[in-house]
Amino acid sequence: MKFNLEKIDSSSQARAGKITTDHGEIKTPIFMPVGTSASVKTVHQREIEEDIKAQIILGNTYHLYMRPKMDVLTQAGGLHRFMNWDKPILTDSGGFQVYSLNGTRRIKEEGVKFQSHIDGSYHMFTPENVMDTQRQIGADIIMAFDECTPYPCDYKYASNSMHMTHRWLKRCCERFDSTEPLYGHSQTLFPIVQGSTYKDLRIQSAETIASFEREGNAIGGLSVGEPAEEMYEMCELVCNVLPKNKPRYLMGVGTPANILENIALGVDMFDCVMPTRNARNGMLFTSEGIINIKNKKWEKDFSQLDKNGTSYVDSYYNKSYVRHLFQSKEILGMQIASIHNLAFYLWLIGEARKHILEGDFTSWKNNMVKKVATRL
Amino acid sequence: MKFNLEKIDSSSQARAGKITTDHGEIKTPIFMPVGTSASVKTVHQREIEEDIKAQIILGNTYHLYMRPKMDVLTQAGGLHRFMNWDKPILTDSGGFQVYSLNGTRRIKEEGVKFQSHIDGSYHMFTPENVMDTQRQIGADIIMAFDECTPYPCDYKYASNSMHMTHRWLKRCCERFDSTEPLYGHSQTLFPIVQGSTYKDLRIQSAETIASFEREGNAIGGLSVGEPAEEMYEMCELVCNVLPKNKPRYLMGVGTPANILENIALGVDMFDCVMPTRNARNGMLFTSEGIINIKNKKWEKDFSQLDKNGTSYVDSYYNKSYVRHLFQSKEILGMQIASIHNLAFYLWLIGEARKHILEGDFTSWKNNMVKKVATRL
Repeated sequence: MKFNLEKIDSSSQARAGKITTDHGEIKTPIFMPVGTSASVKTVHQREIEEDIKAQIILGNTYHLYMRPKMDVLTQAGGLHRFMNWDKPILTDSGGFQVYSLNGTRRIKEEGVKFQSHIDGSYHMFTPENVMDTQRQIGADIIMAFDECTPYPCDYKYASNSMHMTHRWLKRCCERFDSTEPLYGHSQTLFPIVQGSTYKDLRIQSAETIASFEREGNAIGGLSVGEPAEEMYEMCELVCNVLPKNKPRYLMGVGTPANILENIALGVDMFDCVMPTRNARNGMLFTSEGIINIKNKKWEKDFSQLDKNGTSYVDSYYNKSYVRHLFQSKEILGMQIASIHNLAFYLWLIGEARKHILEGDFTSWKNNMVKKVATRL
Repeated sequence: MKFNLEKIDSSSQARAGKITTDHGEIKTPIFMPVGTSASVKTVHQREIEEDIKAQIILGNTYHLYMRPKMDVLTQAGGLHRFMNWDKPILTDSGGFQVYSLNGTRRIKEEGVKFQSHIDGSYHMFTPENVMDTQRQIGADIIMAFDECTPYPCDYKYASNSMHMTHRWLKRCCERFDSTEPLYGHSQTLFPIVQGSTYKDLRIQSAETIASFEREGNAIGGLSVGEPAEEMYEMCELVCNVLPKNKPRYLMGVGTPANILENIALGVDMFDCVMPTRNARNGMLFTSEGIINIKNKKWEKDFSQLDKNGTSYVDSYYNKSYVRHLFQSKEILGMQIASIHNLAFYLWLIGEARKHILEGDFTSWKNNMVKKVATRL
């Protein structure tokens, strides 16, 4: 993996760059649609590429490990071939899902023991086997196995957890560096900064993570319930420590406004289920603000779904029709809204990149942040 | 509406023809995907046109009357504009759904009183207001309001019901012929033959229906639970009575084999929810037979979904992947299977037409009927 930093904004820390993987280039800043179980929910791969213009998608290791399981994925020749997606893929480590499970899970130095949400069977994730699993999935960018602390989290727990995440990172790197990719394309490992919302821990963690000198770095444990201001504060601190010449990935963020603010702080990569999950509930993100398409006010509004939208669904379908689909519980409504939201996210982040390169990012961002948060 | 009969098969009653409407041509025999509530379930309009290559779709008057309701549809400028589908549409009369309702419904000479499945409110469908409703929907081909008798049905009920359907037809025609289309394109009314599974009633009904001299004729009340042989027997009788120079539409039929056999009897038009409903349960119809994609046997079968398939999903996705989507309850599985099944139905009926024109329909049909019913 290569990263070329093309420009840093003069009035913020926003950056434009380019990541090169064996599956192609990613222009940063970038948003990665979430394809949990080898599917970006309700969206065809053809639509992800042609209509949404995604450059990289994300897969969830926990879900893929449970279904279709690793024997299927390895026989398929990895996730790219299994789902017929030939552009870059990033996988998380599975940790986040494991911590979110309602059933029993026990975190020990060795790793995490947990029960499957499907059949209750017991499994163990360790730094080592999570590297192996991500080798089997074959994503271009894979994530270290960490503990994502909840919010709020007391200082002592956050500190102990962070130190364990650092020890786990050492084990991840040792395993990763002593194994080879399975499918002929290279993979790279991103470590993850933790430290909850404590400034000293975040700085310490960022310094430790940077010292591993991997090809990119991630920021985890944010967007887990803390106020946005705290997220921004932590992100700013961490970005000031992480090396400038490597991509920075803020995990699980967020709203359009969150993304724009974090770009200004120096983040290059984002992922979030929000555009697809909210789409399935009838919420549309647009450049003019947020639409709840189920509202009565759209019942007889035959204007196009989003007059500023860039994907074909925005002009093909009208608001009244899409509202009707949601009222009638027609799945097509979710499909349309998902394409729209993802295309909007990709458009928005592409605009951010354009304005970084053109030198007027901050004024554009300040204006856009207000608009995208408006309720229409 | 115009119908040109191009050829009648020499060794069966199969026919190839062409229907011309203000929204374009329909080459017969034809299958019409069902778009119940202004949506062919899980399929984008773009896919219906480009991937499935449908030439006409069907809408359900009952569902559209309930949601989005007629005020929305008329303000939208009719169903074509509401859902952005510019090819022909056929609507049923709403009768079939009304009779299928679990709640109270009372059939009287005037019409049928029933309760909404959505809010329990009372409504009445009459031959007259069903014509008005279908004027408001604006389909190219609209259906007479009839009573679809259940199976089995005693002779007296079937006879009385058939006579009422004939009296209702007179009222439908009077209303239809004294009103104008609302959106600038012409509409045509198809009457419906009833008579349950009684030969004399079917012949009598076909003669009566033919005497109305509409531009096309339909056969209703079949595929409601009777054995396939009885359906074929009734269909053959009726096709022998209905005029040759007008299209014949067999409502709600059926499996691929049912369709091929009925083409041989002289039917030109079909509709059925089977390809989409079964798709949502993981059943794929192919030229080699029927696949239940959820079966364990496909778990590690990475061959393309259907090597003989004609839509892009057939080569784009593999069996193991689509099985995984169904196992994981990913909606994309339903989307892929729906496109596949509808494209298969349209391919199959297109092949039937080709073989009718080429003169070898019967041998092709006899061979194909066996193959499409095989369980793989």
